[in-house]
Amino acid sequence: MTKPVILTGDRTTGPLHIGHYAGSLANRLRCQDSHEQFLLLADTQALTDNAHDPAKVRRSVIEVALDYLAVGIDPARSTICLQSHLPALADLSMLYLNFVTVARLERNPTIKDEIRARGFGRDIPAGFLCYPAAQAADITAFRATVVPVGADQAPLIEQTNEIVRRINATAGHPVLPEAQALIPEAGRLPGIDGKAKMSKSGGNAIALSASPDTIRAAVRAMYTDPGHLRVEDPGRVEGNVVFTYLDAFDEDRAGLAELKAHYRRGGLGDGRIKARLEDILQTLIAPIRERRAALAQDTDYVLRIIREGTEHARARTEATRRDVIEALGLFRL
Amino acid sequence: MTKPVILTGDRTTGPLHIGHYAGSLANRLRCQDSHEQFLLLADTQALTDNAHDPAKVRRSVIEVALDYLAVGIDPARSTICLQSHLPALADLSMLYLNFVTVARLERNPTIKDEIRARGFGRDIPAGFLCYPAAQAADITAFRATVVPVGADQAPLIEQTNEIVRRINATAGHPVLPEAQALIPEAGRLPGIDGKAKMSKSGGNAIALSASPDTIRAAVRAMYTDPGHLRVEDPGRVEGNVVFTYLDAFDEDRAGLAELKAHYRRGGLGDGRIKARLEDILQTLIAPIRERRAALAQDTDYVLRIIREGTEHARARTEATRRDVIEALGLFRL
Repeated sequence: MTKPVILTGDRTTGPLHIGHYAGSLANRLRCQDSHEQFLLLADTQALTDNAHDPAKVRRSVIEVALDYLAVGIDPARSTICLQSHLPALADLSMLYLNFVTVARLERNPTIKDEIRARGFGRDIPAGFLCYPAAQAADITAFRATVVPVGADQAPLIEQTNEIVRRINATAGHPVLPEAQALIPEAGRLPGIDGKAKMSKSGGNAIALSASPDTIRAAVRAMYTDPGHLRVEDPGRVEGNVVFTYLDAFDEDRAGLAELKAHYRRGGLGDGRIKARLEDILQTLIAPIRERRAALAQDTDYVLRIIREGTEHARARTEATRRDVIEALGLFRL
Repeated sequence: MTKPVILTGDRTTGPLHIGHYAGSLANRLRCQDSHEQFLLLADTQALTDNAHDPAKVRRSVIEVALDYLAVGIDPARSTICLQSHLPALADLSMLYLNFVTVARLERNPTIKDEIRARGFGRDIPAGFLCYPAAQAADITAFRATVVPVGADQAPLIEQTNEIVRRINATAGHPVLPEAQALIPEAGRLPGIDGKAKMSKSGGNAIALSASPDTIRAAVRAMYTDPGHLRVEDPGRVEGNVVFTYLDAFDEDRAGLAELKAHYRRGGLGDGRIKARLEDILQTLIAPIRERRAALAQDTDYVLRIIREGTEHARARTEATRRDVIEALGLFRL
């Protein structure tokens, strides 16, 4: 039986952090045997709001690939590939733009939110407005039927499926499969300052390559319960970043439940819960950091992995492109 | 000295007609020695407003190529190539979309007019709104500096040059040349019914493959001066389609001036001027129709011409794509 195809990936705008680990990388490790998995280094998509800084997008390609390999993505079981080097993706993107209206793109709630978050106003780069069509190209080119996305990105999968249905209707038969959003149970990890989004540019992230000192400092600076002034006071667990992180990373669920109860009734200082979290994060990150540092010494190896993965992905995506061209009855030389 | 590069082409939505001949094909014949000329069979662009009918777009590829060869485009001196088979074009299109805002595309007067003419309203296919970026990709990928366009399309060249300037500014040096619009002195040829636009779908065109009978019927049905009821009445030359066509095709300029004077003062019947025009059109079209019919028997030859031209164009456009990627400092595997 063939395994279901899963497409994941990251915009190459900087090294990944523990938010990526909790939100997606851990799940990708679990999917390596159950799924045929493609990890897209999304440098083309990164440009849709970073066209002013192409150098950052370039540098980050290797950074993200290093993160993938360091956390344990196994190139023998998962395919790491580079978006800009898969011509079928641009080709299908341009084609799909004819199967979606401007009004529909503008109504997309994800795009609306992101336009607001980035402060684009009326000066949205056209590439940014159009990226749902490009994402539909990515998903369908791999014939992915499972796409892990945050809850806020589910409308993008709906958009993909609308395009799929229009292509299939024009072709007169189902040439492309629809995809399903796989939304993680745990929400997005907040920044260490308690802000909703952990991001490198926001200075509130812990990178997967963070040094022991950086991890320690980050945990010490972490937002807890501002009302929890003395050890003996009852403390709040909800919105307390240390507990949110413990929820994400502490595998001793019983111990954690007890800790929460203790914190709530008072008598447990922030230092104690932070020490526990720091210990867990140091243990999680140490081997990743080590492997990452070793791999960073061997760029040739990393490039070879990307090159081979991209070759494999090229064959797959070109085949889909041919299928679509054929099904729509377009010209083939 | 290298010749200037000129990019021309046609959307593949149907066979060409004498309006194309007067407006662009005749000029392309003149450019075969003075310029390095590329003729783009624009099937990708044709889809931006014909996604519902891909079969028409496919069929028209050969039709337009036949028209090119039949009028005398010489594959040894001009390159006929197929847009959908030049991956650098889609790639550069996607890149350029990041260098133009949605607001800027919506302000483009050509796009505004065409959206109105096609009755798209708010339901513009995104590909249609974005086609100026795709056209910028076409022009720059060939490093064309001369682009023949109708007066109504001049804003598209300005749009291209804006993108060129933004790319060059981001790169820090002039990687792409700006292009100049070459606007023909003669305006667009009206339809035989006097309507502004000659089009196959409007049923008011004379195809380059028209039979003698069709040409005769078209000239007989041609719009003249509705006030010119009797031969002895003075007639109007302005807005009289027969004279507009004579202006475009009659090489005996002195004879034509005399004919106009005679018509204006009265005593010259519509039959006489129509006979003259018919004679000219029969003489123009007969050899084109003959060559076209012969070529249509040899599809393998036509396909070979398209294939070889596309190979040549691929080398050129890929080189430009690499230059742009390099200049922007994007990742290259």
